[in-house]
Amino acid sequence: MSLDNAALTIFGSSLSGNCLKVKWVAERLGLPFDWVEIDVMKKETRSAEFLALNPAGQVPVVRFADGRLLAQSNAIVLYLAEGSNLIPEGFDRALMLQWLFWEQYSHETAIAVLRFRKTYLKLPPDQIDPSLEPRSRKALDVMNDHLSTRGYFVAGRLTLADIALVGYTRWSHEAGLDLKEWPRVQAWVARIESDLNIGRA
Amino acid sequence: MSLDNAALTIFGSSLSGNCLKVKWVAERLGLPFDWVEIDVMKKETRSAEFLALNPAGQVPVVRFADGRLLAQSNAIVLYLAEGSNLIPEGFDRALMLQWLFWEQYSHETAIAVLRFRKTYLKLPPDQIDPSLEPRSRKALDVMNDHLSTRGYFVAGRLTLADIALVGYTRWSHEAGLDLKEWPRVQAWVARIESDLNIGRA
Repeated sequence: MSLDNAALTIFGSSLSGNCLKVKWVAERLGLPFDWVEIDVMKKETRSAEFLALNPAGQVPVVRFADGRLLAQSNAIVLYLAEGSNLIPEGFDRALMLQWLFWEQYSHETAIAVLRFRKTYLKLPPDQIDPSLEPRSRKALDVMNDHLSTRGYFVAGRLTLADIALVGYTRWSHEAGLDLKEWPRVQAWVARIESDLNIGRA
Repeated sequence: MSLDNAALTIFGSSLSGNCLKVKWVAERLGLPFDWVEIDVMKKETRSAEFLALNPAGQVPVVRFADGRLLAQSNAIVLYLAEGSNLIPEGFDRALMLQWLFWEQYSHETAIAVLRFRKTYLKLPPDQIDPSLEPRSRKALDVMNDHLSTRGYFVAGRLTLADIALVGYTRWSHEAGLDLKEWPRVQAWVARIESDLNIGRA
């Protein structure tokens, strides 16, 4: 971890959709940043040095030039994007926040956890919580239904809701879930990847 | 926000800290509301009638007089409290959001789930995920450390961060956790209960 004069330093893992969403928002907004890779497989989030940045021991965390620190991916993107067209106004903003909280509570805790245990920890099936797959499927069902009448989650355009949700959705295959079963989600993932100029997962 | 003519209906469960936080914020702001009790033990959140209010099948959800619907407790309180002194300005607002997301991701998913399985489902210990207690203890450790230099979570006064976090923290004993082990958390719970004029849990 180097001290420098960057306006924004993102401490994150490239394996984490939570961290990449911060990077994508910074890029979209044209905010210069330094990326400091934190190796979660080596438990670097448990080091004293890291815990001084975020006592909760989680990535991502960002540091501003004046030393202020901010954690929680969706809190970070809300702060970075304040006043930009990634955050709609009025009730659409409330609906965007609804999706951001749902993402962290009902989506990330299923799909991201299942993916990590299957693909990164390589646990055998009998050591993986059997509720994770049905909960992941339920999350994708909710998304597919919502997208039946919309191209984006809120306000008819790209917002933080899409950016937050696409983080782990685009890696569903690493959780053993084929998005062909959820065709509107699959089409939406391609749309958001294109909007963000990020390659296919 | 301004709510004309008692235009808010809260669909919630009195057993849920997520739902009570919405009630407390409405009361604090002097917003008239109707409360519709949803019996989660009888799986009323799975009924077609309820799923029409919130396809994600979760309480709380609120309905405004014009029919607009909003789910996710923290998204609801952020909308209701916009412009009030429960939401600080600038970077303090970002820090408040950090705690709101942490509450839903790292605190509720441990303490609230452990409480529900122990006290409401009355599951025997060997049927309760063994990670729930250490994760709950970790959450209380993080809170106790943060409160070592503060009486409130953010901005030196009552904000949505305190209201969201107190919801399940005050019921820690129902999760088998005695707040005497976390004395600053215990004192803070009493402070917030007093500020909100709610009885001791």
